[in-house]
Amino acid sequence: MSIEQITINNPLDMHIHFRDNDMLQLVAPLTSKHFSGALIMPNLIEPIKDIKSLKEYKKRILSCIDESDNFTPFMSLFFDTYDYEFLKQAKEYIKAIKLYPAGITTNSEGGVKKIDIDILSPTLQAMSDLGIVLCIHGESDGFVMDREEEFLPTYEIICKNFPKLKVIMEHITTKGACEILDKYDNLYASVTLHHLLYTLDDLAGGMLKPHLFCKPILKTNKDKDALVSLALSNNPKIMFGSDSAPHPTHKKECCGCAAGVFSAPIALSALAELFYTNNKLDNLQKFISDNGAKIYDIKFDRAKTITLQKSPFKVASLYTHSTNPSVKVKPMMSEETLSWSVC
Amino acid sequence: MSIEQITINNPLDMHIHFRDNDMLQLVAPLTSKHFSGALIMPNLIEPIKDIKSLKEYKKRILSCIDESDNFTPFMSLFFDTYDYEFLKQAKEYIKAIKLYPAGITTNSEGGVKKIDIDILSPTLQAMSDLGIVLCIHGESDGFVMDREEEFLPTYEIICKNFPKLKVIMEHITTKGACEILDKYDNLYASVTLHHLLYTLDDLAGGMLKPHLFCKPILKTNKDKDALVSLALSNNPKIMFGSDSAPHPTHKKECCGCAAGVFSAPIALSALAELFYTNNKLDNLQKFISDNGAKIYDIKFDRAKTITLQKSPFKVASLYTHSTNPSVKVKPMMSEETLSWSVC
Repeated sequence: MSIEQITINNPLDMHIHFRDNDMLQLVAPLTSKHFSGALIMPNLIEPIKDIKSLKEYKKRILSCIDESDNFTPFMSLFFDTYDYEFLKQAKEYIKAIKLYPAGITTNSEGGVKKIDIDILSPTLQAMSDLGIVLCIHGESDGFVMDREEEFLPTYEIICKNFPKLKVIMEHITTKGACEILDKYDNLYASVTLHHLLYTLDDLAGGMLKPHLFCKPILKTNKDKDALVSLALSNNPKIMFGSDSAPHPTHKKECCGCAAGVFSAPIALSALAELFYTNNKLDNLQKFISDNGAKIYDIKFDRAKTITLQKSPFKVASLYTHSTNPSVKVKPMMSEETLSWSVC
Repeated sequence: MSIEQITINNPLDMHIHFRDNDMLQLVAPLTSKHFSGALIMPNLIEPIKDIKSLKEYKKRILSCIDESDNFTPFMSLFFDTYDYEFLKQAKEYIKAIKLYPAGITTNSEGGVKKIDIDILSPTLQAMSDLGIVLCIHGESDGFVMDREEEFLPTYEIICKNFPKLKVIMEHITTKGACEILDKYDNLYASVTLHHLLYTLDDLAGGMLKPHLFCKPILKTNKDKDALVSLALSNNPKIMFGSDSAPHPTHKKECCGCAAGVFSAPIALSALAELFYTNNKLDNLQKFISDNGAKIYDIKFDRAKTITLQKSPFKVASLYTHSTNPSVKVKPMMSEETLSWSVC
């Protein structure tokens, strides 16, 4: 008998972009409906670098979300050379600090210009001592297809130098990243839905599909296969992080398209389909909740369960803000039909 | 003393897409003004496969061009398994036959499904006997970055089997293609402006730039460097073919962007700049005229000279059809300023 239904306890999306203002209002409820919690990225136009901004942002997020959704936004700070005293205060309000190499993706201009361990060391040591997780967008400034591979030695240096610091390779996209994951006890990774499903061929092999344009860029089949194997494997070091990143359609279908795939509203359905197709539906709970909860030491005050069933789910064409129609976002798989739906 | 001016005799663009109807009216004069002649690609929506259509298309092209431009459209047929008798008739009207693998680029659905030498042999032998040039869009159906490399053995098989047939590797994009060029006496190549100037990083390394999306896709720096060296080298087997392919802006800045870079109006200026910057301005004449004329056995009835000078040339933002404003095309380097201009 085939499985036709699955219940997920406390699904987590450990990497998401909610942005701000009208876009926040549009997208936050689409995540809060399906997930128990999510790690909110701090790369607003003015990156979140102090506790006051962080608390205000969290308040704005919560104001967009129905309380009955029982959803927790886990906050993160934008990496800077913070000192121990600041971090000790901040620890109470955050789950992680996110490090961006400068200019590597949307709103990352204020990131780290050069990853120089000597300069970053006091902050990383303080984070290690205080048990604050370090999330990294791990890409070099090299050729777009090689950026993640070129960054891998940097992950290794940080892991070796700070063996008690939890280091997350965010949105991994390569076989090489999968291969170093188990080399260091303190190394973890998140992976997106789109990197599990697509390659550069989907972006640019036929027509060019700006809605699949993201950073790190989609890679090869060999890479995708390694990511899928890892996600399905029950390895406790890999977790789901959608990197869902909404850009209004006029910033996607234009001369200079912004990087980001908006997958939040379809993530659970598409993951259920992926795990089901690979006969690994039993492992979905770990990938989408248990692993992330363990890595980030998340305790669920109130349990939330999401049931998915094997029935067609037609993805919306567009999500549009109710009072500001210029804020409209096209979801990944727009107008496609998935075979699993959230009940 | 530095060179501040150069005169090119009979510039040729040995690979161009004029399309049809209003688009043809818009773009053909932009090529005819700067070039003595161009090889017109036959992949219209209804591919050019018979002499009647070919003659009618040539007539439509000539009707868009000012006679004083002194421009010759060299026609080509869309490859099919033509027999000797047909080719004997066709020879008078064409300079080449263009072979597309089915579905590999715009309007190539009617192309060759499988390049099976046994099936193609009678046609290729007849072309060889009649001295008709074979132009090939050489890409496999593999991973988008590997398609040209994967096709190279097919070029080699055709060259070996038909040693008297002139085979053109169209719009080459890889170091590998550069390397096989001199292995076969009957193998030649064209290269575009955009593949001489850009890599995948320009398309997708920062924001995604749909106006640089083309097939074959832009490659790596290593590939680009090999192409530039070859173009500058005075090797008689390499010639300019812009592959200028106009798509209206609504088919570029959208969900599913068509492949093609519209470079015709800037090609001469940008090539002068490239050759000048590399101290090879003396070699431009061969690359942009002499080599192509020799490969295709072109005799110029009336000489045409184009003078370029080192003075700023601001590229137009957009080219728009005079009476049908929905037909508008963004040129490569739109609104950028080049340092060489056509006098």
